[in-house]
Amino acid sequence: MFVARTVAELRAARHEAPGPIGFVPTMGYLHQGHMSLVQAARIDCATVVASIFVNPTQFATGEDFERYPRNETNDLALLEANGADLVLLPGVEEVYTPGDTTRIRVDALTEVLEGARRPGHFIGVATVVAKLFHIVQPDRAYFGQKDAQQLVVIRRMTRDLLLPVEVVGCPTVREPDGLACSSRNVYLTPEQRQQAVALSQSLRAAEAAFADGVRDPHTLRRLVRERIEAQPLAAIDYISLADASTLWELNADIEASALLSLAVGFGNTHLLDNTTLVP
Amino acid sequence: MFVARTVAELRAARHEAPGPIGFVPTMGYLHQGHMSLVQAARIDCATVVASIFVNPTQFATGEDFERYPRNETNDLALLEANGADLVLLPGVEEVYTPGDTTRIRVDALTEVLEGARRPGHFIGVATVVAKLFHIVQPDRAYFGQKDAQQLVVIRRMTRDLLLPVEVVGCPTVREPDGLACSSRNVYLTPEQRQQAVALSQSLRAAEAAFADGVRDPHTLRRLVRERIEAQPLAAIDYISLADASTLWELNADIEASALLSLAVGFGNTHLLDNTTLVP
Repeated sequence: MFVARTVAELRAARHEAPGPIGFVPTMGYLHQGHMSLVQAARIDCATVVASIFVNPTQFATGEDFERYPRNETNDLALLEANGADLVLLPGVEEVYTPGDTTRIRVDALTEVLEGARRPGHFIGVATVVAKLFHIVQPDRAYFGQKDAQQLVVIRRMTRDLLLPVEVVGCPTVREPDGLACSSRNVYLTPEQRQQAVALSQSLRAAEAAFADGVRDPHTLRRLVRERIEAQPLAAIDYISLADASTLWELNADIEASALLSLAVGFGNTHLLDNTTLVP
Repeated sequence: MFVARTVAELRAARHEAPGPIGFVPTMGYLHQGHMSLVQAARIDCATVVASIFVNPTQFATGEDFERYPRNETNDLALLEANGADLVLLPGVEEVYTPGDTTRIRVDALTEVLEGARRPGHFIGVATVVAKLFHIVQPDRAYFGQKDAQQLVVIRRMTRDLLLPVEVVGCPTVREPDGLACSSRNVYLTPEQRQQAVALSQSLRAAEAAFADGVRDPHTLRRLVRERIEAQPLAAIDYISLADASTLWELNADIEASALLSLAVGFGNTHLLDNTTLVP
């Protein structure tokens, strides 16, 4: 496994590497969710490239950029063990050259859910993903379904800008009790961690109701809400049931793929989870 | 010369073409200025790709998108005669897929000069150039110095987004009397056309003063202004003397490369010209 710490090193190594090129962009502090992306790329592609870059522009002032967890040694060991060929660890001054003023925005999709809660967040995400795509020039790029809105935004940007990259969404990986893997799970106290299982449990309950024929979005949201509200340490940011492509909130009965997503705060830690309901 | 009317056709042809790939994006109604770009690409590159696409998003409501001059037959003949290998004429619905909401903005640089006169113009320019770069994937792209701010914006965007493209600026091509070639020159009445020569003449006068040691930006702007104001049909939009990289308007004596640029209206036709003063 070759570790490139500059764009030039990555490009030189990528130039020699056989295609197709699979790419897994990450912010590091890797867990089984990231490893499932590397494994998916490993099956599909001759060369697997991963990046570790904690992107400052997707954090707002007061968010956890400075304290975002980092563990480079462990990350590199995990990537090597899971078969990555190239790893890009670029310096922030190379990704954001001094004087950088270029930003990519994906309107409409980014004004709801995480975008409403975190203004500017998806401008930072879209911009850094485009930069990383330009550096790595992958044939395919792998993202987790756990960050569902991020996946929708990246798919849209890639399509709109005619980027020659296939965006592949991979299933959410979970802890044994169902909690979605996240780098931010380490922030949870034992009690918060215990109550956090309600996120996935409420989604499973909604899926069961949906399987039983419930199509009314208000009923399904309420079912989720009641289960989260039963946890004394949980503070709901949002519970959304929206069209899976446009992210428009649904009021009428579900007739097309719908994204049921939720964000819940435990102290300063915000957890996300979601499921897609397909009629 | 192969004419591709879809992205898929262009990509298939480009895939077979030898590198390096030179790219000349245009809005058609080609003139000697465009041809100089094709010729520059022809010298540098094994394959020359041109595009003709009148980009709707860089025109504001009420601007001349609908009446922008078009002449595909003549354009294709000129491109063939000047040695282009591939021409892309994409449909608007392929460049802007229904539901497209992604835009690229280059802050700071685009808030002055043409950007101030035409709000949103450079968002349209930056977005379509990125799309065309993603379709064609050129090694080098050629733009005229005549649209000086556009060139600065595209250079900045290409650098900021780490696009693997070398942006090449080419000298302005002029009519025998000095008027910069422009697709919009056809709109000028004979009297307007005669008076329009004052644009280039005023720039030559400023260059002469600069060569004689004049470094004060106010003096240089005034010198240009007086020559334009002597033309009864000319209405000045702006006369700017700015840092050539940041486009910040200069107030102190010129100490680094400075862009002297002007926009002048004749009726509804806005003409641009510029020169770079290098101390």
